[in-house]
Amino acid sequence: MRVAVYREEHFNAAHRLYNPAWSDEKNDSVFGKCNNPNFHGHNYRLIVRVTGEPDPETGYVIEFKTLSDLIKEHVLRHFDHKNLNLDTPWFRNLNPTAENIAIVIWNILRKQLDNRLDLTVRLYETERNFVEYPAA
Amino acid sequence: MRVAVYREEHFNAAHRLYNPAWSDEKNDSVFGKCNNPNFHGHNYRLIVRVTGEPDPETGYVIEFKTLSDLIKEHVLRHFDHKNLNLDTPWFRNLNPTAENIAIVIWNILRKQLDNRLDLTVRLYETERNFVEYPAA
Amino acid sequence: MRVAVYREEHFNAAHRLYNPAWSDEKNDSVFGKCNNPNFHGHNYRLIVRVTGEPDPETGYVIEFKTLSDLIKEHVLRHFDHKNLNLDTPWFRNLNPTAENIAIVIWNILRKQLDNRLDLTVRLYETERNFVEYPAA
Amino acid sequence: MRVAVYREEHFNAAHRLYNPAWSDEKNDSVFGKCNNPNFHGHNYRLIVRVTGEPDPETGYVIEFKTLSDLIKEHVLRHFDHKNLNLDTPWFRNLNPTAENIAIVIWNILRKQLDNRLDLTVRLYETERNFVEYPAA
Amino acid sequence: MRVAVYREEHFNAAHRLYNPAWSDEKNDSVFGKCNNPNFHGHNYRLIVRVTGEPDPETGYVIEFKTLSDLIKEHVLRHFDHKNLNLDTPWFRNLNPTAENIAIVIWNILRKQLDNRLDLTVRLYETERNFVEYPAA
Amino acid sequence: MRVAVYREEHFNAAHRLYNPAWSDEKNDSVFGKCNNPNFHGHNYRLIVRVTGEPDPETGYVIEFKTLSDLIKEHVLRHFDHKNLNLDTPWFRNLNPTAENIAIVIWNILRKQLDNRLDLTVRLYETERNFVEYPAA
Repeated sequence: MRVAVYREEHFNAAHRLYNPAWSDEKNDSVFGKCNNPNFHGHNYRLIVRVTGEPDPETGYVIEFKTLSDLIKEHVLRHFDHKNLNLDTPWFRNLNPTAENIAIVIWNILRKQLDNRLDLTVRLYETERNFVEYPAA
Repeated sequence: MRVAVYREEHFNAAHRLYNPAWSDEKNDSVFGKCNNPNFHGHNYRLIVRVTGEPDPETGYVIEFKTLSDLIKEHVLRHFDHKNLNLDTPWFRNLNPTAENIAIVIWNILRKQLDNRLDLTVRLYETERNFVEYPAA
Repeated sequence: MRVAVYREEHFNAAHRLYNPAWSDEKNDSVFGKCNNPNFHGHNYRLIVRVTGEPDPETGYVIEFKTLSDLIKEHVLRHFDHKNLNLDTPWFRNLNPTAENIAIVIWNILRKQLDNRLDLTVRLYETERNFVEYPAA
Repeated sequence: MRVAVYREEHFNAAHRLYNPAWSDEKNDSVFGKCNNPNFHGHNYRLIVRVTGEPDPETGYVIEFKTLSDLIKEHVLRHFDHKNLNLDTPWFRNLNPTAENIAIVIWNILRKQLDNRLDLTVRLYETERNFVEYPAA
Repeated sequence: MRVAVYREEHFNAAHRLYNPAWSDEKNDSVFGKCNNPNFHGHNYRLIVRVTGEPDPETGYVIEFKTLSDLIKEHVLRHFDHKNLNLDTPWFRNLNPTAENIAIVIWNILRKQLDNRLDLTVRLYETERNFVEYPAA
Repeated sequence: MRVAVYREEHFNAAHRLYNPAWSDEKNDSVFGKCNNPNFHGHNYRLIVRVTGEPDPETGYVIEFKTLSDLIKEHVLRHFDHKNLNLDTPWFRNLNPTAENIAIVIWNILRKQLDNRLDLTVRLYETERNFVEYPAA
């Protein structure tokens, strides 16, 4: 009788995609306009899914506000209105593609949740480009 | 060759979250503003998913209108423009959290569907707070 | 060179539509299911529009956060997770239709804004039913 | 460590639902207004999901633009601003229900993707009527 | 103290854009893929705005359901699941561009509304292409 | 008989809000997290409205694709995947608030349109924060 609980949050950040081991030409050819040296940015839409059994006394798997506060404290505080490449420790040596950002957020939140709860992270880079980790 | 068919419906209802076995203080501390004694309300957005094999003669797993009519007759007729705690039989002794409402709706609709069809219910309490039952 | 600045906020409330001067029959015939005595509810979506000239030093007509804080302090604090008929002073003798709620919110916010700024309030009762005051 | 990558595209098409082996009466009774002989149409919203492991050098499972180009070349070019029944080869003998269109699109795209990648297709016929193939 | 009341409705229709007084070449060059001889189609999203003073007894300018029923009876009944060019009388000699469809709908609804009420029609051909008549 | 035609486009950009004539303290107190020295970013949603009379031969005020191409050539080409402060000439000495970006875009597009057409620009910085210029 497992129920999935979803909470959507948003953060606005700058980033740049490139591989420092590559030439400028190769970076341009692979990452195109996403490799702009002065960065560009997105309104990232983040949907966190937590799965478990509802507590019989409250009817909650996890309270929406509790989940929202966890995301704000452990993700948004570090990501919102930041430059992902320059202002956060996670993307010093990791390209901030949507795939990698979703994996980083999953690793951050996984540590904050009880083991009986499962976790999935969906991240929208734009309305039409998005990722989910782990894939079902 | 199973296909999932989804139909979205809406209902507008009042509710209050609390556990009658608890003190007012405990209810306030756990349920916060959702425990307002005079109720509050939501536009619930309901997405019902039915999975099966398309009929070779029609190309349908289940016709969208058939699914919509089932939801209207067995769910919306009882939930729309109602007070979930006072006007429905299901939440007399069950706290109407999003989790519990989704489970109740699943139990109602499960009885209306052929056994060869699988059923999942997603319920949005707000745009950013939603649940799914059963969790995949 | 006037610019309109918009901020969207949300509140979840219960309400009931009826006219106490009328018989039950007349209330039912005019207000239908919106006259449910135990209330029903909505996720109200509120879009506040403030029009003025940008300040040359900041580039702002009004900062989004300032506008958001005004709405939260003067509207949401009184309306969110409340019963509009029973928990607020404005709808004791005024039917909480979308039209009347929008006019009440306009009157509340008008007092908080400098005279050089114009104000319009849009209120969504559902995704498909909404109002704006004053009408352009 | 599999990640799902989603790309949303749109196409606008006319179609008609009917089974040529049936009488007009039976077609009308099963397909109703969708059986209009002069066709009707939809803005189809298509979400393609591709699942795999991110490449360690790029951080991509598949680049959003690569996926978008594949969909445009192999699906939209044939479906957008077309009559699905008359202008495409796939629905000469197959009823263009949402279920069947999703299966056709899946078969088209499956051939274009590396075997290490999984594929799912979601198709919205309207905002409230949609399907997914294969069902998870 | 005028308030604008909005109701959103939807219809799904096929159409073709062309000018019968022109050559095929000119039609193709002006209307492009919208000139497909076998038609294409859209989920049209229609937002009707009616402006007036709220009735002091009800708090309504016009009841949402009344407005919805007017649109269903006088517009959707004729447009939904139809071919605009072939199945309706309005576009026999009038090109069914979004502009012209909006003007036709305005003329239909204007006759159904009391003179003290103002009317505006917004029509979405796609999420990103839409029109409004009359322009404010 | 004027009709408004709307086209929605998107661009993803980095920016930073600050006034170089002010101290760091004053910039922080006025612009808060929007003053992050390494920039942040947004998916800007741009809705351009052009008003005029439909051409009797085509039924168009302006073709959606023509309007889209104008926006792409004169706005998106300069703004999309850019740093508004560093990569464009317009915000060297002008703070890139939503208000100022909308005015800049209006000035760019005004030069591209015939005088018989009116122009309004709406710009969404986030889903809930947006502006319009000129204000009606």
